[in-house]
Amino acid sequence: MVASEIKACLFDVFGTVVDWRSSVSRDLADFARHKGIQGIDWLQFAVEWRKLYQPSMEEVRSGRRAFTILDVLHRESLVKLVERYRIENLSGADVDHMSRAWHRLDPWPDVREGLARLKRGRIIAPCSNGNIALMVNMAKRAGLPWDCILGAETARAYKPTPEAYLASCRQLALPPGLVMMVAAHNNDLKAAKAQGLATAFVARPSEHGPGQTSDLAPDPSCVDLAAADFADLAERLG
Amino acid sequence: MVASEIKACLFDVFGTVVDWRSSVSRDLADFARHKGIQGIDWLQFAVEWRKLYQPSMEEVRSGRRAFTILDVLHRESLVKLVERYRIENLSGADVDHMSRAWHRLDPWPDVREGLARLKRGRIIAPCSNGNIALMVNMAKRAGLPWDCILGAETARAYKPTPEAYLASCRQLALPPGLVMMVAAHNNDLKAAKAQGLATAFVARPSEHGPGQTSDLAPDPSCVDLAAADFADLAERLG
Repeated sequence: MVASEIKACLFDVFGTVVDWRSSVSRDLADFARHKGIQGIDWLQFAVEWRKLYQPSMEEVRSGRRAFTILDVLHRESLVKLVERYRIENLSGADVDHMSRAWHRLDPWPDVREGLARLKRGRIIAPCSNGNIALMVNMAKRAGLPWDCILGAETARAYKPTPEAYLASCRQLALPPGLVMMVAAHNNDLKAAKAQGLATAFVARPSEHGPGQTSDLAPDPSCVDLAAADFADLAERLG
Repeated sequence: MVASEIKACLFDVFGTVVDWRSSVSRDLADFARHKGIQGIDWLQFAVEWRKLYQPSMEEVRSGRRAFTILDVLHRESLVKLVERYRIENLSGADVDHMSRAWHRLDPWPDVREGLARLKRGRIIAPCSNGNIALMVNMAKRAGLPWDCILGAETARAYKPTPEAYLASCRQLALPPGLVMMVAAHNNDLKAAKAQGLATAFVARPSEHGPGQTSDLAPDPSCVDLAAADFADLAERLG
């Protein structure tokens, strides 16, 4: 990997760009206050919602279900949780609003400035399992200056399926070796590296809250470059 | 159409956002000078290239050919023209470079400032027959601040096929009535209006050079709003 040859950086989003755990729980707690819903630990609720994320996508990855955008999967998982927590008197519009908490996630503090620097001279785009509307609404609210939105919906495949990475490179008309995948998750980078992409690891040690044990350090077998944050990544890519 | 309810503006690009005729001929003339190719009227060449545009897409629209991105269609048409003009000694890389003249188009003078204003408070995206790489490379070079890239490649359908407009609305999770198609071509707006989108016409009376006779005025049967330029459009949408 030659840093100066990288023409595009693709970013994992949930966890790498935005702090989903704090943001989803903050958003749901605000809504609950507004609706007078009491007695729920929204941090735990957010974590349980996230636990349904991989199984819901696995239905699509396995071929048991036709490609379905993440907004739909998120809403289905939310309906299960609303029943589990016995939250009552929610309208369809209430559930829609809660489900779109994933459109209202806050970036980590280094992201906006780092992306602005990375955008000079190279393409920056999400390569997320989030769908286009989710990514666009998040970017408008959070000030993320993407050049375009790539990922599961444009690839019609969920990471870590190879097609999710390969379609993104193809849609930019770039060979994978000139594209860098940036993530806080070694398994994402391992899958990208297997398709020939360059890889950068940025640790997000509080993604899962205090006591996080996973992804605290880069896996040298699949990581080309480890950066402290997005500003450091911009510095290293020059 | 209530202007304040419009959540996204989709833009035709070739002709509406950028001046393809001047830009393609300028780009090819520069390349010819560099290569020592003489005796060709590059303005006429650009116009002939553009004449092959609709027939090449019609193969896809008719179902005779699987969806194929515009970069490939542009290159195939270019190869025909290179033979017709008997231009010799071009390498594959030369033809690739010439074909990507469509990635290096200049915007009309009002575009950058107008788009920056339109982007405040609503989503702006191309809904062009150009593919993602073409739109991204053009935007990086020309400073077009799109929120995302929509159009033929994400819809896998060429305008004016209904799916090109409907997929773009669906991918933004917006009903067509809250989305405005902006174009300098009445036929594009007629097709968008038929799918329920709001429409805005911006005249580009020199798109086809002096003596242009088509699309000098909006067709009132399909145009909700006629604007003098993108700044005027931003003003009217508030």
